[in-house]
Amino acid sequence: MTRLWNAPDDFPDEMLAGFTAASGRWVRQVPGGVVRSTRDPRPTVSVVVGGGSGHYPAFAGLVGPGLAHGAAVGNPFSSPSARQVESVARAADQGRGVLMCYGNYAGDVLHFGEAEAAVRADGIDCRTVRVTDDIFSAPAGRAEQRRGIAGDFTVFKIAGAAAAAGHDMDTVEALARRANARTRSMGVAFSGCRLPGATEPLFTVPEGRMAIGLGIHGEPGIAEVDMPTADGLAELFVERLLSAEEVPLPDGPRGARVVALLNGLGSVKYEELYVVYRRVAELLDAAGVTVADPHVGEYCTSFDMAGVSLTLLWLDGELERLWSAPADTPAFRTGSVDTSLLLPAQIAPDAESGSEPLPESSRASRRLAARIVTTLDASHAAIDAAAEELGRIDAVAGDGDHGVGMRRGTRAAARAATEVAARGAGALTTLHAAADAWSDKAGGTSGAIWAVILRAVGRELGDDREPTREDLVRGLNRAVEDVTSYGKAAVGDKTLVDALVPLADTFAAAVGAGTDPTAAWSQAAAAAETAAQATADLLPHRGRARTHGERSLGTPDPGAVSLAALARVVEQSFSTVG
Amino acid sequence: MTRLWNAPDDFPDEMLAGFTAASGRWVRQVPGGVVRSTRDPRPTVSVVVGGGSGHYPAFAGLVGPGLAHGAAVGNPFSSPSARQVESVARAADQGRGVLMCYGNYAGDVLHFGEAEAAVRADGIDCRTVRVTDDIFSAPAGRAEQRRGIAGDFTVFKIAGAAAAAGHDMDTVEALARRANARTRSMGVAFSGCRLPGATEPLFTVPEGRMAIGLGIHGEPGIAEVDMPTADGLAELFVERLLSAEEVPLPDGPRGARVVALLNGLGSVKYEELYVVYRRVAELLDAAGVTVADPHVGEYCTSFDMAGVSLTLLWLDGELERLWSAPADTPAFRTGSVDTSLLLPAQIAPDAESGSEPLPESSRASRRLAARIVTTLDASHAAIDAAAEELGRIDAVAGDGDHGVGMRRGTRAAARAATEVAARGAGALTTLHAAADAWSDKAGGTSGAIWAVILRAVGRELGDDREPTREDLVRGLNRAVEDVTSYGKAAVGDKTLVDALVPLADTFAAAVGAGTDPTAAWSQAAAAAETAAQATADLLPHRGRARTHGERSLGTPDPGAVSLAALARVVEQSFSTVG
Repeated sequence: MTRLWNAPDDFPDEMLAGFTAASGRWVRQVPGGVVRSTRDPRPTVSVVVGGGSGHYPAFAGLVGPGLAHGAAVGNPFSSPSARQVESVARAADQGRGVLMCYGNYAGDVLHFGEAEAAVRADGIDCRTVRVTDDIFSAPAGRAEQRRGIAGDFTVFKIAGAAAAAGHDMDTVEALARRANARTRSMGVAFSGCRLPGATEPLFTVPEGRMAIGLGIHGEPGIAEVDMPTADGLAELFVERLLSAEEVPLPDGPRGARVVALLNGLGSVKYEELYVVYRRVAELLDAAGVTVADPHVGEYCTSFDMAGVSLTLLWLDGELERLWSAPADTPAFRTGSVDTSLLLPAQIAPDAESGSEPLPESSRASRRLAARIVTTLDASHAAIDAAAEELGRIDAVAGDGDHGVGMRRGTRAAARAATEVAARGAGALTTLHAAADAWSDKAGGTSGAIWAVILRAVGRELGDDREPTREDLVRGLNRAVEDVTSYGKAAVGDKTLVDALVPLADTFAAAVGAGTDPTAAWSQAAAAAETAAQATADLLPHRGRARTHGERSLGTPDPGAVSLAALARVVEQSFSTVG
Repeated sequence: MTRLWNAPDDFPDEMLAGFTAASGRWVRQVPGGVVRSTRDPRPTVSVVVGGGSGHYPAFAGLVGPGLAHGAAVGNPFSSPSARQVESVARAADQGRGVLMCYGNYAGDVLHFGEAEAAVRADGIDCRTVRVTDDIFSAPAGRAEQRRGIAGDFTVFKIAGAAAAAGHDMDTVEALARRANARTRSMGVAFSGCRLPGATEPLFTVPEGRMAIGLGIHGEPGIAEVDMPTADGLAELFVERLLSAEEVPLPDGPRGARVVALLNGLGSVKYEELYVVYRRVAELLDAAGVTVADPHVGEYCTSFDMAGVSLTLLWLDGELERLWSAPADTPAFRTGSVDTSLLLPAQIAPDAESGSEPLPESSRASRRLAARIVTTLDASHAAIDAAAEELGRIDAVAGDGDHGVGMRRGTRAAARAATEVAARGAGALTTLHAAADAWSDKAGGTSGAIWAVILRAVGRELGDDREPTREDLVRGLNRAVEDVTSYGKAAVGDKTLVDALVPLADTFAAAVGAGTDPTAAWSQAAAAAETAAQATADLLPHRGRARTHGERSLGTPDPGAVSLAALARVVEQSFSTVG
């Protein structure tokens, strides 16, 4: 369990500040994460990695010569926001393009994807390689749907070495893809971590039992078995990873060379790992597989989760040369990086310093902005009161961070809105400032979705006119369109969409029927509430890899519950709109 | 808790085998531990470190260019035996002397001390620097009695760098002493680890509480307080380490440069450590102390114990140059070691291969040797049955490994005795083989003490005569003398001596009064048993740092209990001596 923090909401920022203070030789902090504090004499392709925090040394610990150029750092177990990723990518770019490399999780795919589009829109060559090494997260036939776990490290290392070798973007991307195609991992777990500020562990495994294939955020595995001996675990690992469907070589494993990486998830310690590795080495040797470079330690953790994974990177000549190239990062060093050749990073003048001028706003829009601020304050208070319950619902099959993310998001949104409204912003600008802050600070999928909602509504309300009830109807409809297009979820998928659609539809119908806006909103909020509770009867959405969104039957979707709760908050302050 | 093992007794050997398999680039295995697998072009002083296992990367993870030359590896939380240390020291020696460097624990002091004497007897310049960084294990005025914790690492690093720089033994020793004199650590703990095969954790701290100063084997701390925030912990650390009595500089801390090492004991993870470090850095900065090189991570663990320590090494110009020198080991790498200059280690022909010829033995002595073998077998069975209870007694204030150590020791002794007796050894040779094996495999203080007892008795029984009851009386008396001289304990100190002395005295008195040997031994065994139980009424022995020997009032000393139990085993087979 996590024990040391100040305020749980401040944990991510304080962690990053401490990491940067301890690691100035390698990294400097930028909005959204870290980039190298040094640069190579000649520009290279930049490799940007990232994901939720809680997995150290993934991801910030892997930034430095020979490895990554930047890492976007999200909240614990939540993707960094698109703005964070974009900020890190821009700071890391050296003019030869940016390769984004991260584990394949729904939230990360959304946020990195959006950031990639924004960076490309500026003419920067930006591409993506997602790591999919976890063999138990999808069958071999659907390998592209697999999650990334400790194999992140092997793919990042190859990408970083390819960039350091001076290759162009096509080559760096191709080598990273080849590394991913040749990396396989298998993990087991004995107990889950407890996130900072949470009162319950993310998951539990009964004493004397072991969960096979369980993910690094507590995502469901494939089986639970009796605790094996150390040798038994080694045999399980090697047997599965050497099975015909998992060896990515046409002629099978005999004669191949591999990097073997035995990874502790946090509280399975080095001595135990070495006892397991002893048998892993014997078994690989017996199968005719040569371990070119063994690594035993902590490469991708999950706070103090008790678990172990084995990763194999199946080498060829070029991959082995890249693997062996020197690297020097806070958490991983190999070979000799000639630091005398490195130059201090050129730091661009901070584009975020000072306040940007605000768009013109009408008096009516400023009045609405003030009401939005009050509503966001009330939203934060409501979520704060409900955060534990939301976390509890989320922990049933998710990662338990929904309440924490919503609390961070509403707080940041309220603060940002207060700041711009005080400077005279209208409704659009106030909602967009709130959206950016929410997405940045909440992270995860829900942060992104809420930003989409606020932006959609803001666009219809504008800054310079007297907003009408029809504007709000259009804003809600636009929010439904944008959220379903962005998140690829439909009604019945057990997500926030299940509550958002009845909210928008009921409000539009009541306004259309001439009901006054306050009463119309009350009907809409009630419909959203009913729909949110009804998600408890839905099976989890299985259409795609939705790590952070899988929910069990019998538990409502926390995103839908949050939306309904916030609709009730809006109801309180509704009478002034219209 | 430790989860992965095969047979708990095999854990240390299998751990070392796995470590060596994964770390062949740096180390090779020798009897008793590991030494470097490479050598410098020019011979240097050799730095040999070591201690119990369970503290990775201490100690084997720190062997490699720029750091240690060898590590003696004991059982979990037990000192390596003198023979193991001696073996590693001899293998590491390059002809310029051996500096032994280890944390100040009673068992380690005994075993390394004995090994040092043995190595010096062969004309090798062998010296010792003990690490004493733990400020809570004794007051500042008795700093030489303090334990070594994570400060082991800073002292080893300076010693290794001084050796690598080519300095002579006087200089290397002086620099290591200076590093130790300038290293201070403070540790806290939230929960204890569970050793491989143990059913209970070594200690527990109530939920929401924190133990201050608690040692890495669960040795008592100085206080228990409410769990602080991360910042609160940082403030506690810095305040104590910057207090006047702990800053080893005449002019105080302002303006000084330090290495700061924030160490996780096993399951307090990186993100939490960085949150704490953030505040540590602020506080040191505010006090005018410059952190020349921060380290945040796991440098001295205790399996998965939840705890944190902060170490400060107060630098001067020379120490800072040595600290910054390159090093390349399995667990710690800094700077650029030019590996192209390294040569493969020269491996001496294995002095232990083949069977040495046995001394001549008389028929009577061979008969006694056979009885000794039977007695040792029975001893192992008796200890095996009592191991859990012995561990439980030991866990009250010790480290809970007494039962495990006794089981390993008696098993190894029985096997070694069986082997030499089968080849025709007499009583002396059989007991000495048993003594060596016991000490090697059991490790810890008790292994060494039992080896002393068996050797003392063996010397009086000889190989070539018909042993008499008077020989046994003299043997027991000799054992009392050797054990008290070796272990520096007297009757009333709550150690095995409390049972050994009445055993020897009662037997001598009864034999002197003409009682037949079998009856005399029964009286002696009963006296030992009574005395062992009476140790429950004694306060723990506080005369010196006796980490592994501190026992609480109300619990008998497990060493005394074991001795009494084995006296009863001897009673069973006694009638044939005399």
